[in-house]
Amino acid sequence: MALFAMLLGLTTVQAQKASWIWYPGDFDIYMSNVMQNRRTERGSFFPPFWKMDSHYVLVDFHKEFNLAKPEEVKLYVEGTYNVKIDGQAQLGFPKSITVPAGKHKLSLKVYGQDKVPAIFVQGTTVFSDESWLTTFEDKEWIDASGKTSDKSGTTFVNAGTWHLADPLTPPSQFKLPVLPINATKIERQGKGFVADFGKETFGFVKLHALKGKGKVMIYYGESKEEALSTDKCETLDLLSVDLNKKKDSVMVLSKAFRYVNCQFEDGVSADSVSMLYEYSPVSERGSFTSSDPELNKIYEVAKYTFHLNTREFFIDGIKRDRWVWSGDAYQSYLMNYYSFFDAATVKRTLLAQRGKDPVTAHINTIMDYSFYWFLGIYDYYKFTGDQQFVQEVYPRMKSLMNYIDNRRNKNGLLEWMPGDWIFIDWADKLSKDGEVSFEQLLYARSLETMALCAKLANQQSDAKLYDGLAKALRQKIFALYWNPAKQALVHSRINGKQTENVTRYANMFGIFFDYFTPEQKLAVKKNVLLNDKINKITTPYMRFYELEALCAMGEQDYVLKEMKSYWGGMLKLGATSFWEEYNPDKKGTEHLAMYGRPFGKSLCHAWGASPIYLLGKYYLGVKPLTAGYGTYVVNPVLGGLEWMEGTVPTPNGDIKVTCSKTQIKVKADVGTGKLTFSSKTQPTLNGVLLPVKKGNYEVKIEKGKEYLISYQAL
Amino acid sequence: MALFAMLLGLTTVQAQKASWIWYPGDFDIYMSNVMQNRRTERGSFFPPFWKMDSHYVLVDFHKEFNLAKPEEVKLYVEGTYNVKIDGQAQLGFPKSITVPAGKHKLSLKVYGQDKVPAIFVQGTTVFSDESWLTTFEDKEWIDASGKTSDKSGTTFVNAGTWHLADPLTPPSQFKLPVLPINATKIERQGKGFVADFGKETFGFVKLHALKGKGKVMIYYGESKEEALSTDKCETLDLLSVDLNKKKDSVMVLSKAFRYVNCQFEDGVSADSVSMLYEYSPVSERGSFTSSDPELNKIYEVAKYTFHLNTREFFIDGIKRDRWVWSGDAYQSYLMNYYSFFDAATVKRTLLAQRGKDPVTAHINTIMDYSFYWFLGIYDYYKFTGDQQFVQEVYPRMKSLMNYIDNRRNKNGLLEWMPGDWIFIDWADKLSKDGEVSFEQLLYARSLETMALCAKLANQQSDAKLYDGLAKALRQKIFALYWNPAKQALVHSRINGKQTENVTRYANMFGIFFDYFTPEQKLAVKKNVLLNDKINKITTPYMRFYELEALCAMGEQDYVLKEMKSYWGGMLKLGATSFWEEYNPDKKGTEHLAMYGRPFGKSLCHAWGASPIYLLGKYYLGVKPLTAGYGTYVVNPVLGGLEWMEGTVPTPNGDIKVTCSKTQIKVKADVGTGKLTFSSKTQPTLNGVLLPVKKGNYEVKIEKGKEYLISYQAL
Repeated sequence: MALFAMLLGLTTVQAQKASWIWYPGDFDIYMSNVMQNRRTERGSFFPPFWKMDSHYVLVDFHKEFNLAKPEEVKLYVEGTYNVKIDGQAQLGFPKSITVPAGKHKLSLKVYGQDKVPAIFVQGTTVFSDESWLTTFEDKEWIDASGKTSDKSGTTFVNAGTWHLADPLTPPSQFKLPVLPINATKIERQGKGFVADFGKETFGFVKLHALKGKGKVMIYYGESKEEALSTDKCETLDLLSVDLNKKKDSVMVLSKAFRYVNCQFEDGVSADSVSMLYEYSPVSERGSFTSSDPELNKIYEVAKYTFHLNTREFFIDGIKRDRWVWSGDAYQSYLMNYYSFFDAATVKRTLLAQRGKDPVTAHINTIMDYSFYWFLGIYDYYKFTGDQQFVQEVYPRMKSLMNYIDNRRNKNGLLEWMPGDWIFIDWADKLSKDGEVSFEQLLYARSLETMALCAKLANQQSDAKLYDGLAKALRQKIFALYWNPAKQALVHSRINGKQTENVTRYANMFGIFFDYFTPEQKLAVKKNVLLNDKINKITTPYMRFYELEALCAMGEQDYVLKEMKSYWGGMLKLGATSFWEEYNPDKKGTEHLAMYGRPFGKSLCHAWGASPIYLLGKYYLGVKPLTAGYGTYVVNPVLGGLEWMEGTVPTPNGDIKVTCSKTQIKVKADVGTGKLTFSSKTQPTLNGVLLPVKKGNYEVKIEKGKEYLISYQAL
Repeated sequence: MALFAMLLGLTTVQAQKASWIWYPGDFDIYMSNVMQNRRTERGSFFPPFWKMDSHYVLVDFHKEFNLAKPEEVKLYVEGTYNVKIDGQAQLGFPKSITVPAGKHKLSLKVYGQDKVPAIFVQGTTVFSDESWLTTFEDKEWIDASGKTSDKSGTTFVNAGTWHLADPLTPPSQFKLPVLPINATKIERQGKGFVADFGKETFGFVKLHALKGKGKVMIYYGESKEEALSTDKCETLDLLSVDLNKKKDSVMVLSKAFRYVNCQFEDGVSADSVSMLYEYSPVSERGSFTSSDPELNKIYEVAKYTFHLNTREFFIDGIKRDRWVWSGDAYQSYLMNYYSFFDAATVKRTLLAQRGKDPVTAHINTIMDYSFYWFLGIYDYYKFTGDQQFVQEVYPRMKSLMNYIDNRRNKNGLLEWMPGDWIFIDWADKLSKDGEVSFEQLLYARSLETMALCAKLANQQSDAKLYDGLAKALRQKIFALYWNPAKQALVHSRINGKQTENVTRYANMFGIFFDYFTPEQKLAVKKNVLLNDKINKITTPYMRFYELEALCAMGEQDYVLKEMKSYWGGMLKLGATSFWEEYNPDKKGTEHLAMYGRPFGKSLCHAWGASPIYLLGKYYLGVKPLTAGYGTYVVNPVLGGLEWMEGTVPTPNGDIKVTCSKTQIKVKADVGTGKLTFSSKTQPTLNGVLLPVKKGNYEVKIEKGKEYLISYQAL
């Protein structure tokens, strides 16, 4: 983990005087197109199948300034542009201008088809940042005298930015940083060699001292088997070389691999192979250590897995798709809040997923994935406190929800219609016919989210509308899907009738959505979650929610064992990152296969990293109560560990928790916390006895102070 | 007019075996962005103010073929792409593939941000054309075994094309052709020279034998005054030269001018100046000659004016905006049907104007301009018979109409709302407050158009809906705006009350929309159209409709005099093309000014060319009765001329009409015509007496036959 330490110095710069700015959301869309179109499959370009949107090609930027003295201002622009002071255009494409003293309006209008129209304005008091206003259409009118009417209808919004602060590196040249890494072992193999980089990694392969004329084949493998399988490995590069002098050569496209198999035609050779590791320079803010070395290893590998999948955006997995899938990203957001707390990457991923109006399909074309997108926005607000983003994105929330509302069937429920993909999970024979309860549950939660966000966006009548719709749907869900005999929600209705099928999905979501009565919760836990007769979940994706539901019901002991068995199971098989799917019943290379292909499975999938989240939220027990950790709760649960300690990041500082069976230590940089715990004996706080409270104790945590509890865990 | 003759050989190729194809409408949008962003004003970039849309950046193309033997197929692609045969991707970016014998599906998927994703596939039986299907989003779903579900929801549409047939000139390199032209006169002037090209023209200025180091200033003028006014001319070029050998230099941007004033800093020189005339290679199919030389000159100058403004799209004027304005383009369509009959340019202009959903503003932000767009589509169908286009564009018609319907006020009428520009015409003190009758009339006509087009697109329930809305609105217009005392439609209602104001606009449209009773028509003619107390119209734009209304009421004699006085008036002032605005009361250089700028007026404006349309439709008297001239009428009206002859183009041939006071000759290549005329004496047809019909005669015209009528004009 030495690498992480190195990265600490490279955190995203949060506030710059001058930044590149653009129409909000546009660079997010543009860059996600660039990223998602880097996928190849066995040398063929493999783009996403869903609609990709585009930036606005013509954008106006302006801001008013009141200057004490004239100011020389440098202008950097991506696109064809004009510059106006108080509406008066300057000749040509000036690289600098002088803004006179007094109150003046500086405007730039930029056209860019190939790149996002973007500006970087650099003066002393005049500089580009999010306070600039932008629009993609002026609604002005003029008369025959050339006079502009006072009846403007132009809508301006604040500019978007990623805080890119180098005027000479415009947004179109944005790249993640790289770091040279050597292979841990290189072996001769066939007409070339196989390099092992010691663990799953990502970046650009570099051939050293390449020379000669002919072809070079590079076969990538997350496993050695894959790298050696020249006809079945998922990714490869094929180079045609004609070099009469030795020259180092870096591949154009980044790839995921642990092993690289380089094969050379006669007449071509290279001395060696290394790589440029490409990474997102996020800060490692969250941490977790415990008395259990296996769990610690799980946590570290999860964090590495998650870091590899944290790129320009949160992607699904680094080998195959490298796409922004909403269901996957939603889990990444939650993991992120307990590790990097990189709010910027959440925001840009949400913007990239949603794209632009009109809505012509679900996000990623998947019904459930539209819903996760809504949920992600409210979570973002809850963890970061960034209400402005909710206000900015609210119109696009509403148009997506309109699309969904218009797809209700005559019963007011959602069921498959042409164009919808009902995903839920990768699982054999998982019925997606009829009105699936899981989708209705997510729909209800999304309507609740709409109501909350409408309030944050000051759309009171919308809030009322969505609140009403959500309540009605929740009632309907229980009326239609709750089976009193089975004491569980059934999986679906077909032709207006409940099916006999009970699956984990709706039932586990119902728990942490808090949709059940306490009695229903207990029944569901027994009849579904802890019932081996109900089909098991084999993806870490749905295990995330299953374990979350159990944690939410205080089953940390059980969940700890499950984590050790499931994630520990992958480690025992040699995993250096966590997988897309893991079925303990499979053997050997069966673990590498998926989608009917021997190496189809991703061995480094973001959704494999959920222990980060579970350990932070349900063991260290830290979560916000009000937005941005204004208030929060700390409820440490050892779940069978002797001790644990860790850090949970917040927008403005950290919350540190140490907990053993006899001592709890909490120190927070932010907000007002509520530490809750149980004790067999009467506990002390910083040496002073706490009042008796029948086993349950509560301590108010103020920022900057250290709280030391002596107690006796139950 | 020698040039026109040369162009005849360069007509747009209508059918090619293989063409560049793209998602329909996308290249139209892309190319109109390119064109409309070429505007500069005194050396500053001057883009449109309305929203510019973008192409879909990721597009799938496919077609199924059944081959008797394997076929080698060449592939040309703009963008990053893959190629699949029966869903199996080929390695890399193949430039050719072999499609095996039998039934196979060939697919290409293309990503292009900077250019429109486009393909050119060239085999013997396998080639790209409009029969290929395309989509911007695949709605497929797969299961964990990699199997694609049978529940596809993908919508495919036929590819779009401009019939660009050169695989080595991809769409992004599309350019209009050019022709070198010399100045008719070059005079020394200041530190350089002024060239006169003899008439209004358009293209790229070329400096011959440019040499030295320093600046060159080029000032363009539609008038000599403008070219000499270095501080007020509307367009200019500023070059920084550093050439130690003589070199010819062509300007990057095309400009409109008759005069070019080239001024050189000391140390820089050029031998001479010429130009590359840039033009659209349309065919000159329509013609008109008569006994009146002034009218003939008007017709020729109108046609030249119109040709200059017929470019990649129909633009407003060549000097200043060079934008696609919907109200201007609508008139161009009508002129085009009586001159070039270039259906492709109409179609691409309609697509470019409309752009993509969502609708966020009126077309060009102008309320009336949205309505002309609807009208243009039905006219296009009526003249060309191209029902497929109506079907393709219907969804975008409907979303625009939804936008408009949602802007009705509580009275069900349209009035100004923030974001709307109420244009009507350039005219002083033209009130745009309240509920303006003119806008309601266009709205009603647009709803009628929606009903007609819904039928053509097989949307029967929409047809019924829009028909009902149109009827109700027409009734409301007469109930609210018809003033029985004034016997005319009033201009507007303010606060629910009729204003006293009567203007020509709604009244003249009411005539050729045929909204009035015969009595109302006569009253309107007398009280409004022929009433000098009603404010006069000073733009050829609205004179177009005013004269059309009078022609529709049989006032060709009057209109002929008006044409001679108005357009003849411009010719007498030395016009070599017709203007944006002409007020006979102005003097000297007053004619050059507009928008508060001394040379602000465009002296070559498409809407100045309406005699083309009036002479074809109301003098030669040819118009389609059913779509694409399946049936049509010929009703020649001399309007005071001794004789006239001309040609009216149709989709599949011409209709030739010759008419004097004693003889009418008609020959048509197409359809079934109905020649109607009146005669004082009993006429003969090809020497045979026609049956007596009380002065009105009707002769059926069959294609390919010549009809010669001897008669005596009334």
